[in-house]
Amino acid sequence: MKITKDLYQGSLTLLTDFYQLTMAYAYWKSGKGEQEAIFNLFFRKHPFQGGFTLTAGLDYVIDYLDNFKFKKEDLQYLGEMKAKDGSAVFEEGFLDYLDNLQFSCDIEAIEEGTVVFPNMPLIRVKGPLIQCQLLETPLLNIINFQTLIATKAARVNLAAKGAPVLEFGLRRAQGIDGALAASRASFIGGCSSTSNVMAGKLFGIPVSGTHAHSWIMSFETELEAFEAYADAFPDQCIFLVDTYDTINGIKNAIKVGLVLRAKGKEMMGIRIDSGDLTYFSNKARQMLDEAGFPDAKIVASNDLDEHLISSLNTQEASIDIWGVGTKLVTAFDQPALGAVYKLSAIKDETGEWVPKIKLSQQSLKINIPGAHRVRRYSSNGKAVADMIYLENQEINPRGTVIIDPSDPTRRKRIMPAFYQEEELLIPIFKGGKVIYKSPSLLDIKERAKCQLAAFDSSHKRLVNPHLYPVGLEENLHHLRMELVLKAKKFENEKDEF
Amino acid sequence: MKITKDLYQGSLTLLTDFYQLTMAYAYWKSGKGEQEAIFNLFFRKHPFQGGFTLTAGLDYVIDYLDNFKFKKEDLQYLGEMKAKDGSAVFEEGFLDYLDNLQFSCDIEAIEEGTVVFPNMPLIRVKGPLIQCQLLETPLLNIINFQTLIATKAARVNLAAKGAPVLEFGLRRAQGIDGALAASRASFIGGCSSTSNVMAGKLFGIPVSGTHAHSWIMSFETELEAFEAYADAFPDQCIFLVDTYDTINGIKNAIKVGLVLRAKGKEMMGIRIDSGDLTYFSNKARQMLDEAGFPDAKIVASNDLDEHLISSLNTQEASIDIWGVGTKLVTAFDQPALGAVYKLSAIKDETGEWVPKIKLSQQSLKINIPGAHRVRRYSSNGKAVADMIYLENQEINPRGTVIIDPSDPTRRKRIMPAFYQEEELLIPIFKGGKVIYKSPSLLDIKERAKCQLAAFDSSHKRLVNPHLYPVGLEENLHHLRMELVLKAKKFENEKDEF
Repeated sequence: MKITKDLYQGSLTLLTDFYQLTMAYAYWKSGKGEQEAIFNLFFRKHPFQGGFTLTAGLDYVIDYLDNFKFKKEDLQYLGEMKAKDGSAVFEEGFLDYLDNLQFSCDIEAIEEGTVVFPNMPLIRVKGPLIQCQLLETPLLNIINFQTLIATKAARVNLAAKGAPVLEFGLRRAQGIDGALAASRASFIGGCSSTSNVMAGKLFGIPVSGTHAHSWIMSFETELEAFEAYADAFPDQCIFLVDTYDTINGIKNAIKVGLVLRAKGKEMMGIRIDSGDLTYFSNKARQMLDEAGFPDAKIVASNDLDEHLISSLNTQEASIDIWGVGTKLVTAFDQPALGAVYKLSAIKDETGEWVPKIKLSQQSLKINIPGAHRVRRYSSNGKAVADMIYLENQEINPRGTVIIDPSDPTRRKRIMPAFYQEEELLIPIFKGGKVIYKSPSLLDIKERAKCQLAAFDSSHKRLVNPHLYPVGLEENLHHLRMELVLKAKKFENEKDEF
Repeated sequence: MKITKDLYQGSLTLLTDFYQLTMAYAYWKSGKGEQEAIFNLFFRKHPFQGGFTLTAGLDYVIDYLDNFKFKKEDLQYLGEMKAKDGSAVFEEGFLDYLDNLQFSCDIEAIEEGTVVFPNMPLIRVKGPLIQCQLLETPLLNIINFQTLIATKAARVNLAAKGAPVLEFGLRRAQGIDGALAASRASFIGGCSSTSNVMAGKLFGIPVSGTHAHSWIMSFETELEAFEAYADAFPDQCIFLVDTYDTINGIKNAIKVGLVLRAKGKEMMGIRIDSGDLTYFSNKARQMLDEAGFPDAKIVASNDLDEHLISSLNTQEASIDIWGVGTKLVTAFDQPALGAVYKLSAIKDETGEWVPKIKLSQQSLKINIPGAHRVRRYSSNGKAVADMIYLENQEINPRGTVIIDPSDPTRRKRIMPAFYQEEELLIPIFKGGKVIYKSPSLLDIKERAKCQLAAFDSSHKRLVNPHLYPVGLEENLHHLRMELVLKAKKFENEKDEF
């Protein structure tokens, strides 16, 4: 699926913040537009008070970048923008510059379906300042949301302990792409299917669904409604039993199930969408078993999330399949990831890369300077620690120390020689050309599954997870401290506080 | 702007839940597909624990419906769907039916920018069962989200007490349309501008923005960065002052402001994006005033929402303009509205409309049967009460009673003759053809402003609002009670509980 070709009408290039264009213009005016820079896209804190995050959205990003081009209509729109005094906001020459702009950045990224941690670059963009800047907003929009939902889906599926989870959030999703991209990310995170037919068509995700309360209400009686549905789908009946009275609904489902069986067909099961799901599912299990339907599945839905599923499992509710909508596709308890995109290095006139720091009143908001790589150390297939390091830094195989950027007292000594290592940042674009072949969505889903399996369950606990060690390699840590202190001294010397 | 023509590639017809298609197929098989029905789209509870909701999204819905057509590729996708035994899920004949399907429903709706309340139909769809059913999901997707955001924006703007609110949520929005539709809805709800250039181009919303921390960081010093920006936009400088040290940043802004003034230009102001906004804005106001810049504006941002803005106003922070992103465009504290779409009446074989009820273990989930209208009574331009009533019900001008559907002890006697009245449901489509001319976005925004002004401030309080009276006209109330009791008796008689 190519979002630009198959879904959107060509140009998404203006899908950016206006200040990216004003900065681009000011860079162009000041002659700095082609100066090379490195920007990192990263997040500062796992969502949902969890211990891990699962990446998604890279394929959207690739498609976006591969079609990055200002169209005539885009330039016309920009050309018509007026300042307060009626003059054009942007000079002709700048519009010509945009017209001729060819995407030429190097992009490295962590592949979709990877377990990731705060502060590591999920995407690293290297190229002319103007291009880097223009990409900030669309990249954040895509990665923030899809990574958030993939992570939520992984949590929901962890809570379901291998039972299928059906995603049906379309009606409550935040807009059209809020639904489509969420279906894709949910599938990566472990969901079995989506209700969204368009997501099925665009991404090849299996679609599922049976009937609604309105189906039942459009007939004189519930029994007639079940019978009519069974006539249409004799092999795929999941009867929704709670339109009028759940217990009676189960009885009606059993009646129609017996009729189907007499015709050599089997009903698949029932769905409960309201009331006490533990009570009704256990009651339903008992009634179905006694009626000779031990294989009939019980599907439960109604504002479920990972915590509710976990609680229902603890209560031993007889639920075989989970239907999850609103709470998954909107990431209800934390609907934004809050990833950011920060300048970390710039090439000066002599061709030297200069690492860059941004201070903040909130120390959590101080970035990591330089050009980085990210390495994961593993032992026997189990992840041991992740290290963010300067790309030209030699790592001593006999021993190095990683230091938590948010708490320098948290350190871990690593003996690289004892471990397997994996570089997480992979080249995606070189000089503006794609050099990466996107895996199929099924392969991404499989990768996510293997990735999650490589982490100890304590890191995947839904609440109060054990912190997985991720840190800055010691030289990077020292560089960062040095720049912070230098900047603070430099800026604060004449200052009141 | 036509979303299908200008943004999406033609066909959004598959943007629906799969069960809508399985039900459509089963209706078609059972010969009920053309039976006429009425469905209502409504919500059950104001979002954000508020006392009002502001509608948005109708123009998207109109465009969606006006382009409702199964494309060849849609039918091909459905035709290739296989059941477990390898047979096609849908018969050829059904696909032919979909191929020939012409949208033919009557649609009534409450106009965008209207203040609305729980249980009233925001959209009423009347037409063949199959069509009504297929529309459920896309209509909910569009209206749920845009109404949620328009409401949030109205709350944020109420908190800002008339100060401009700039929406810049694109980077944290839930997907591409999660941003575009949110920018539109935020504008309706009272925001002055968006940062999203594509939303500016598509909807004609004013765009705004100046520069980011990365602009500052790409120069040797903050002062140089401000100077370079001032060179490019001498008339539009809002300097971001908190990259290194906020107080020093304000000093640098003042320096460049004085240079601009010497050239006959005026800086517009400064922006503070971190730290204690009260402390720094008051400090900035003092410094700017003392330096001779009493007209320079102070823009504040950093995870703001209506509660934080309200608190900052109470603290008398010197903030002139508010920048709001994440918390607005994701409706962070309640990211889904939860509107539903329910069958309320169906035409039987004799051509008689039969009102329909759905029971539930949760009494909040019991719908309102019948074909409705919604009337708002006002006195001297102030809204007094809203009444949901059966469309063929004569209303006695001398007096009627409205009854709260969620608490039948809450009743209000109304003397219609004393009031102005407005019918809120307006015909939009007749027999599948648009008969409504959409107002411009500016007119919708203006309507929202007037609507909000018509309600007492107690209903618009951010927390613990006073409940505005909305009820069922007494005959509708009695019909509903009668059907509920009948259904409960009928369904429960042989039942254990």
